[in-house]
Amino acid sequence: MAGCCSALGAFLFEYDTPRIVLIRSRKVGLMNRVVQLLILAYVIGWVFVWEKGYQETDSVVSSVTTKAKGVAVTNTSELGFRIWDVADYVIPAQEENSLFIMTNMIITVNQTQSTCPEIPDQTTVCNSDSDCTVGSAGTHSNGIGTGKCVPFNESVKTCEVAAWCPLENDAGVPTPAFLKSAENFTLLVKNNIWYPKFNFSKRNILPNVTTSYLKSCVYDARTDPFCPIFRLGRIVEDAGHSFQEMAVEGGIMGIQIKWDCNLDRAASLCLPRYSFRRLDTRDLEHNVSPGYNFRFAKYYRDLTGNEQRTLIKAYGIRFDIIVFGKATVLCDVIVLYCMKKRYYYRDKKYKYVEDYEQGLAGEMDH
Amino acid sequence: MAGCCSALGAFLFEYDTPRIVLIRSRKVGLMNRVVQLLILAYVIGWVFVWEKGYQETDSVVSSVTTKAKGVAVTNTSELGFRIWDVADYVIPAQEENSLFIMTNMIITVNQTQSTCPEIPDQTTVCNSDSDCTVGSAGTHSNGIGTGKCVPFNESVKTCEVAAWCPLENDAGVPTPAFLKSAENFTLLVKNNIWYPKFNFSKRNILPNVTTSYLKSCVYDARTDPFCPIFRLGRIVEDAGHSFQEMAVEGGIMGIQIKWDCNLDRAASLCLPRYSFRRLDTRDLEHNVSPGYNFRFAKYYRDLTGNEQRTLIKAYGIRFDIIVFGKATVLCDVIVLYCMKKRYYYRDKKYKYVEDYEQGLAGEMDH
Amino acid sequence: MAGCCSALGAFLFEYDTPRIVLIRSRKVGLMNRVVQLLILAYVIGWVFVWEKGYQETDSVVSSVTTKAKGVAVTNTSELGFRIWDVADYVIPAQEENSLFIMTNMIITVNQTQSTCPEIPDQTTVCNSDSDCTVGSAGTHSNGIGTGKCVPFNESVKTCEVAAWCPLENDAGVPTPAFLKSAENFTLLVKNNIWYPKFNFSKRNILPNVTTSYLKSCVYDARTDPFCPIFRLGRIVEDAGHSFQEMAVEGGIMGIQIKWDCNLDRAASLCLPRYSFRRLDTRDLEHNVSPGYNFRFAKYYRDLTGNEQRTLIKAYGIRFDIIVFGKATVLCDVIVLYCMKKRYYYRDKKYKYVEDYEQGLAGEMDH
Repeated sequence: MAGCCSALGAFLFEYDTPRIVLIRSRKVGLMNRVVQLLILAYVIGWVFVWEKGYQETDSVVSSVTTKAKGVAVTNTSELGFRIWDVADYVIPAQEENSLFIMTNMIITVNQTQSTCPEIPDQTTVCNSDSDCTVGSAGTHSNGIGTGKCVPFNESVKTCEVAAWCPLENDAGVPTPAFLKSAENFTLLVKNNIWYPKFNFSKRNILPNVTTSYLKSCVYDARTDPFCPIFRLGRIVEDAGHSFQEMAVEGGIMGIQIKWDCNLDRAASLCLPRYSFRRLDTRDLEHNVSPGYNFRFAKYYRDLTGNEQRTLIKAYGIRFDIIVFGKATVLCDVIVLYCMKKRYYYRDKKYKYVEDYEQGLAGEMDH
Repeated sequence: MAGCCSALGAFLFEYDTPRIVLIRSRKVGLMNRVVQLLILAYVIGWVFVWEKGYQETDSVVSSVTTKAKGVAVTNTSELGFRIWDVADYVIPAQEENSLFIMTNMIITVNQTQSTCPEIPDQTTVCNSDSDCTVGSAGTHSNGIGTGKCVPFNESVKTCEVAAWCPLENDAGVPTPAFLKSAENFTLLVKNNIWYPKFNFSKRNILPNVTTSYLKSCVYDARTDPFCPIFRLGRIVEDAGHSFQEMAVEGGIMGIQIKWDCNLDRAASLCLPRYSFRRLDTRDLEHNVSPGYNFRFAKYYRDLTGNEQRTLIKAYGIRFDIIVFGKATVLCDVIVLYCMKKRYYYRDKKYKYVEDYEQGLAGEMDH
Repeated sequence: MAGCCSALGAFLFEYDTPRIVLIRSRKVGLMNRVVQLLILAYVIGWVFVWEKGYQETDSVVSSVTTKAKGVAVTNTSELGFRIWDVADYVIPAQEENSLFIMTNMIITVNQTQSTCPEIPDQTTVCNSDSDCTVGSAGTHSNGIGTGKCVPFNESVKTCEVAAWCPLENDAGVPTPAFLKSAENFTLLVKNNIWYPKFNFSKRNILPNVTTSYLKSCVYDARTDPFCPIFRLGRIVEDAGHSFQEMAVEGGIMGIQIKWDCNLDRAASLCLPRYSFRRLDTRDLEHNVSPGYNFRFAKYYRDLTGNEQRTLIKAYGIRFDIIVFGKATVLCDVIVLYCMKKRYYYRDKKYKYVEDYEQGLAGEMDH
């Protein structure tokens, strides 16, 4: 019990600290301070200034809506004179962070459920019915084989299939692109951001933007960097590509919106920065399966009630809106607290130690 | 060689440690322990308890499906008595983490590819054909100019365009919203989560939920916090907005599902928490381009085979389901190992040092 | 002033360092080195080798496109012989990171806006008009009550509703799945990745893949691990499920693409790794509201211009493509700099200290 008490007393009332040697040497002293200075510079320069280690950060929560505008006109023998507007070329009508604009297409009109010869190809060309299998359906075939060999045109015979007939012939992509004037369409991007930790929200249509400015402006990195309306051709050009080339086979464009906000400064300085990037491949040497396309159909009933459809293989550009963002706030409290504490500790430590060490150092020098 | 050996011997068999001064002073000793206690409290309180630095965390992988239910009825001169069900008002029919419910609309029926006068506006009103340009297609025009100036109504003449005619006139948004009863529609949200690192998965339809409860329950933060069926009106109200106001021009609602799971406790305590937030702007003073709308069309063939369409400018609420989540597991092994090691080191260090230092301290006191 | 100068001089030209005790004991010395070795092994083993703390990492930015291929045939009394191709079973035609393939369905043809008896159910069965409320529209009802009680069939009477009639009867899901041959459909996934920090981009169609290989290959984890074409049945099987079972009620499959790239090595070693996982629930005991389905409609006009529609309740598999990825680069500069600095410091420290300490240690031994 007494031993326990004395141990507790020793624990509480005794203080052990290393004995310090004080070396009075200009060379060593200066060297020491230079090294300390370098470390200090490193800590301040790298951790604080460069990495901003003193700031509290938050990631962005964002919502995006898009709206395309523009009209294209085409005049072909098959479709005649035809106007294309938003409801025709945006597919599907709405998506979450993305918008597809059809720029080229292969249309196959008046398809019905019937039988017709396959598109010629090394597996479908035939001489007689014995070359064709009943019920066959390869991955690349357009229908179910009927087992007959029928003329595709005057010179070639192919296996007959039950399918949506006539079959689509997508051998050649229209060049230039069918809706090449899509270059002049515009895209309004509305983006709201929110930093949950700081409960700070903002949108890319800035408070000083008026309705009349919004009606006439077009984004330009130099003259109109905060206009949220983009000309499609400009987006693709700013990413270093040719719109007319991209329109033929389609592709994916990324519209990047960057919100790096220092919330210690005025909220009006937290501004969006736009940049554009082609997201699909540009590897020209290994250009297997390029571009972006998909098929969809419009279904009709003919006069007798039978189902018909117009099949469209749509090539186009999908605009993916990608929102990056980080908000930083200097966490004053913690830094101040740390600083204070550090000096406090230093004071405390040095007050008691110095006397002894000075004395010891003095002894040693002598 | 001998020098090398002796250096190696010195390296292996010698141990250098700072000489310690033991100060027998109640003031200094207590101060020292108090400071140590503060640091300890800070480390335990901040790093461990607050920041949970001892836990291993994992982010969530989630899949979301949604399903709306409800029927609305409208009775207008143009459309007559009409019932609207899920297949009518959810556009597109399925999306990945999102669901759009149409609440208001401007319908333009029986559009065909023809020519008609533009909607009057400062750029389209004209007096004679010389005011109209052939082939013009501004970003805001609805078609391609034919160069003619034709009467829009008895008092106004506008330039004629080739377009889907008649043109949509979206000057006024129907108020109150066309499908105002969408307030009572319900939304079932199914959410599966998975923490890859811990291979833990769960879904928001909890194991104790029965089919009969699911058929009748509606989410309420107090009475039914785990019912995954939400009344649309309630979602908007819980976010502090008016459904009927929002229904007119549309908007984006975020349904946030938070899964913060401490996997050290029973899996049944890992529960979803729902919250709602309007994601589009609420900046009433600078309300440029508010709400959310888009256009889509339903295509028909008339009796002569010509294409017709019904154009719909759909206003509505997009519900974005945002899943947050973090799972934590106390990594016992590492903490125990660290603890053990620390004591081990301390033991080892103090066993040898103490004798010397006690002796030295004793010498110094004398 | 003089005091200030001397303080500055002391600060600059003096160097204090702990006095060191050198203990010449084999036991203590070896113990010390062993402990140091353990710490070093821990630092190198855990922080460097395991956690790769020396590397700079970057998260992936990815774009995904998908394309399904395949034809199914059905032969039912209601629809007759019918071929289903991509435009029929992919809904919607394109999505950002996801693709839905319809595998089963309940079709209700020729729906018109009219009145019809509700589907029998404990709330809709009635004996007389007094059991039915005019204008009622419960969440689960298919239309608006007319207040009449009409025969549903010869034995049962139900309340009449104004709705899209005839109503869909989804009591039984077709088993086996209507489009059970979807098992043999294939899915081409094109994925481009980009590491912004290192400006490194790559796609999952590797440079050495030829067009002819792409036309014939099918993914197999052992024989064709880099073929980006997946057989649907194989995806589901690799995740440990039965395609035919999943096809009946639908579900969500995750196709995970993992790009863990060490950019210090050749870019050709940065390869995608595919894995498959069912994302919706597998909790067989509590299987409330299983699978995945939604409703959509195809709208027609009949000969008199009235709107008709075909309502489809589509069951199917949604393939969510989830791209994970981390690129690491050894940040040589920093590591080298740290190493250099450490040795530099050590040198500097030891040069001056050793003399004194050796002397002191010597003194003490005597």
